[in-house]
Amino acid sequence: MTSAASPAYRRLSVEERRVQLLAAALTLFAHRAPDEVSLDDVAEAAGVSRPLVYRYFPGGKQQLYEAALRSSADELELCFAEPQNGPPTERLSRVLDRYLAFVDEHDAGFSALLQGGSVAETSRTTAIVDEVRRAAAEQILVHLGVDRPGPRLRMMVRTWIAAVEAASLIWLDEGKQPAAGELRDWLVDHLVALLAATAASDEETASVVSLLLAQETAEGPVGALARRVTPVVSRAAHLI
Amino acid sequence: MTSAASPAYRRLSVEERRVQLLAAALTLFAHRAPDEVSLDDVAEAAGVSRPLVYRYFPGGKQQLYEAALRSSADELELCFAEPQNGPPTERLSRVLDRYLAFVDEHDAGFSALLQGGSVAETSRTTAIVDEVRRAAAEQILVHLGVDRPGPRLRMMVRTWIAAVEAASLIWLDEGKQPAAGELRDWLVDHLVALLAATAASDEETASVVSLLLAQETAEGPVGALARRVTPVVSRAAHLI
Repeated sequence: MTSAASPAYRRLSVEERRVQLLAAALTLFAHRAPDEVSLDDVAEAAGVSRPLVYRYFPGGKQQLYEAALRSSADELELCFAEPQNGPPTERLSRVLDRYLAFVDEHDAGFSALLQGGSVAETSRTTAIVDEVRRAAAEQILVHLGVDRPGPRLRMMVRTWIAAVEAASLIWLDEGKQPAAGELRDWLVDHLVALLAATAASDEETASVVSLLLAQETAEGPVGALARRVTPVVSRAAHLI
Repeated sequence: MTSAASPAYRRLSVEERRVQLLAAALTLFAHRAPDEVSLDDVAEAAGVSRPLVYRYFPGGKQQLYEAALRSSADELELCFAEPQNGPPTERLSRVLDRYLAFVDEHDAGFSALLQGGSVAETSRTTAIVDEVRRAAAEQILVHLGVDRPGPRLRMMVRTWIAAVEAASLIWLDEGKQPAAGELRDWLVDHLVALLAATAASDEETASVVSLLLAQETAEGPVGALARRVTPVVSRAAHLI
């Protein structure tokens, strides 16, 4: 394996080397908490020396962590993109499938980042996380057909995103149980229920819900939820 | 003001002095991010010298921050206690009123703590925050009448708590708008909707919801939500 053609020893361009080091860092930071990754680990994973890593990332581990986080954030934001056609809950299901695949792929790093308490967490890393949350909220509002949401609808979307994050952390904590598809269906039901409850006291959300319902089908998630929730709600007959 | 009877100069017992310093730290950390509070600020607020603060808190600002956080966490956990009688949503409303009063009282410190990225955040501070979240979840389960919740119900409760936290941060960020009572009502509706949606696919939650509904009144939050959500849900008639 000392052949000059071996990938680790081939002379790489500056950009190729940077990409290679970042890829090694990304893999390590995805599967371990940042406090459990050393610069030596990155050097070893990339098959290079520690000084070479410093030449490309003079800020050391922190700079590598932030670069890996930036790259992961960009990847995650791409997951949110979804064409604006078809029943909205089916679009949401596809986005959640991609999101949960990302969570699955970045398990330990995702948990460490969102659970906090790491020395690698700075105002810069929290700004990147907040940017991803904002991007997620904007995409949801696009599919809700809302350009400038009022405070209640905006709060509803942001709290649902927080609930999705919390559910993802619990899911990782519980060994990725239940199956991702089951979690996705529950998260969709969660948003539908929250939209209905919010529409009950907010006119803007009520208009949004009317437009959304018109695009749903009886076979889709809303139809299934409506049929399954009917016996539950019938127990509330004495309250109406 | 140099009289020996002046509170700042009276000779305090060791415990009194500790309590006095902690009270000064608590007030400062409640209204500012930890990075914006110095040990000199604490000394000045308590009317003592910097070396005296170090004598009681040799770990300096970090130790004071953690002691203040510990004390605030205990205070917050006390807010969760609520007798197990009366309609469950009315009990929840009272707990949320106390919780939102706490958030109002600890505004900037609460935001800084939960938004993360502070150098004062350590595995010890995140452990305290997690303990408060666990205490909140346990209290909710007590009122749901569940001793050993299954995974879906447990996830539901924990995601709702995450949603409440997110809503609190948004509320602080938006200058404490809407009024706390309006936010409380929406958070109650949120949990009711989530219980209904979760009951649609989880038998344990369905049993819990049956028992809860039997304790609610037509004049209470569930009755009001049920009446207001009826016109919204009627738009879904084509899906059932």
